[in-house]
Amino acid sequence: MNDAAAKPSAARSAVVLLSGGLDSATTAAWAAQAGFRLAALSIDYGQRHRVELDAARAVAHALGITDHVVLPIDLAAFGGSALVDAAIPVPKGRDEAAIAAGIPATYVPARNTVFLALALAMAETRAAEAIVLGVNAIDYSGYPDCRPEFVAAFEAVAALATKAGVEGRPTRILAPLQTLTKAEIIRMGLGLGLDYGLTTSCYDPAGTGAPCGGCDSCLLRAAGFAAAGAADPRIDPARWA
Amino acid sequence: MNDAAAKPSAARSAVVLLSGGLDSATTAAWAAQAGFRLAALSIDYGQRHRVELDAARAVAHALGITDHVVLPIDLAAFGGSALVDAAIPVPKGRDEAAIAAGIPATYVPARNTVFLALALAMAETRAAEAIVLGVNAIDYSGYPDCRPEFVAAFEAVAALATKAGVEGRPTRILAPLQTLTKAEIIRMGLGLGLDYGLTTSCYDPAGTGAPCGGCDSCLLRAAGFAAAGAADPRIDPARWA
Repeated sequence: MNDAAAKPSAARSAVVLLSGGLDSATTAAWAAQAGFRLAALSIDYGQRHRVELDAARAVAHALGITDHVVLPIDLAAFGGSALVDAAIPVPKGRDEAAIAAGIPATYVPARNTVFLALALAMAETRAAEAIVLGVNAIDYSGYPDCRPEFVAAFEAVAALATKAGVEGRPTRILAPLQTLTKAEIIRMGLGLGLDYGLTTSCYDPAGTGAPCGGCDSCLLRAAGFAAAGAADPRIDPARWA
Repeated sequence: MNDAAAKPSAARSAVVLLSGGLDSATTAAWAAQAGFRLAALSIDYGQRHRVELDAARAVAHALGITDHVVLPIDLAAFGGSALVDAAIPVPKGRDEAAIAAGIPATYVPARNTVFLALALAMAETRAAEAIVLGVNAIDYSGYPDCRPEFVAAFEAVAALATKAGVEGRPTRILAPLQTLTKAEIIRMGLGLGLDYGLTTSCYDPAGTGAPCGGCDSCLLRAAGFAAAGAADPRIDPARWA
């Protein structure tokens, strides 16, 4: 899959939002396979699970993405989420019904709107025709800004917001995982040769990067690997010994 | 106008995007007069005219806004605009037809989309019912993200993006200057008691903060004051002597 990403003469280019998690890594691998020349954007937004930025760098390297911007922005200045505010605990040990039932404490206000807006700015400076985003509305955490109608509404904003849009080249928002289950996503990534050991999903990892195993994200990931009939290289105990 | 802004028991609250320029200051004064309890957001995005952040602080102080976040975000990391890239010159001495004719070098990619997204995050953490924005589609600089259709599209995103929106309290985007001429904006602000000497519009000010007098923004401001039949306290030569 590095072949497509590395082609310097590829006509199509895209900016991929790369968190270092399973979904965005799969999305990036999909886009590289689809022939896009990729630039990657990762956001250092004060998340307590900052090990994911190291994971994002590892995934970018594995996919041959050299134009990778890690942009610091202090969303913690606004407060209001367990992911950026150490005073709010990360929920642990919830079942899938509880995870799906409501908007959890790990919700970061307007996060995907902020990330897409920044990706749009980056896409315009690179004349990229698309933004690729790993949102998923099936096995997800109840975040409103992962829904297909949200993505469609943002695409309408993108078409109106930019010089490229005015000139008839609106930026498309591609969300290839939108309707896939977590197991289907994992099977797709494995088929693309992606090493999920490079990715991290835990909201509350140890200092070593070892996943906690109990947060919503760890539980959704474990259920996905189980349903896909695959082993998760990230949770190999030998790795964290 | 400080009375409305200072009311601690006001039920309605809003986040105002405050650049320190003439339009956003007028917008903030309008919202305070309309009874909103205001929080202000200013973005330190690597603009070469950073004196506007001092102006934003002065305007917030004058309006009694104590919840003022100045958020640093390095849009210069993306490049592509004269406002953040010293290698691209700021256009000078253009007439109004030239200013209106196209998208100039001072366009910052996706700027208003990024700013509105950040304001949306802040609005959600404050349970603010509205974002107030000083965009204007009459005497403007040809930026696509100042048009009414852009603002409407972003309001549709806001309704889908947030927990508040899902719960039936979508964040409104108010753009009270949308259809006003620069002269009408200035007359409105003067009627609200706003001191335009606190505001700055220049894209390329001297180190003292003195306006250059030749950039698009200085020229639009001068034409606005002339049409309003008012003197601009910002350009008083005695001030910069």
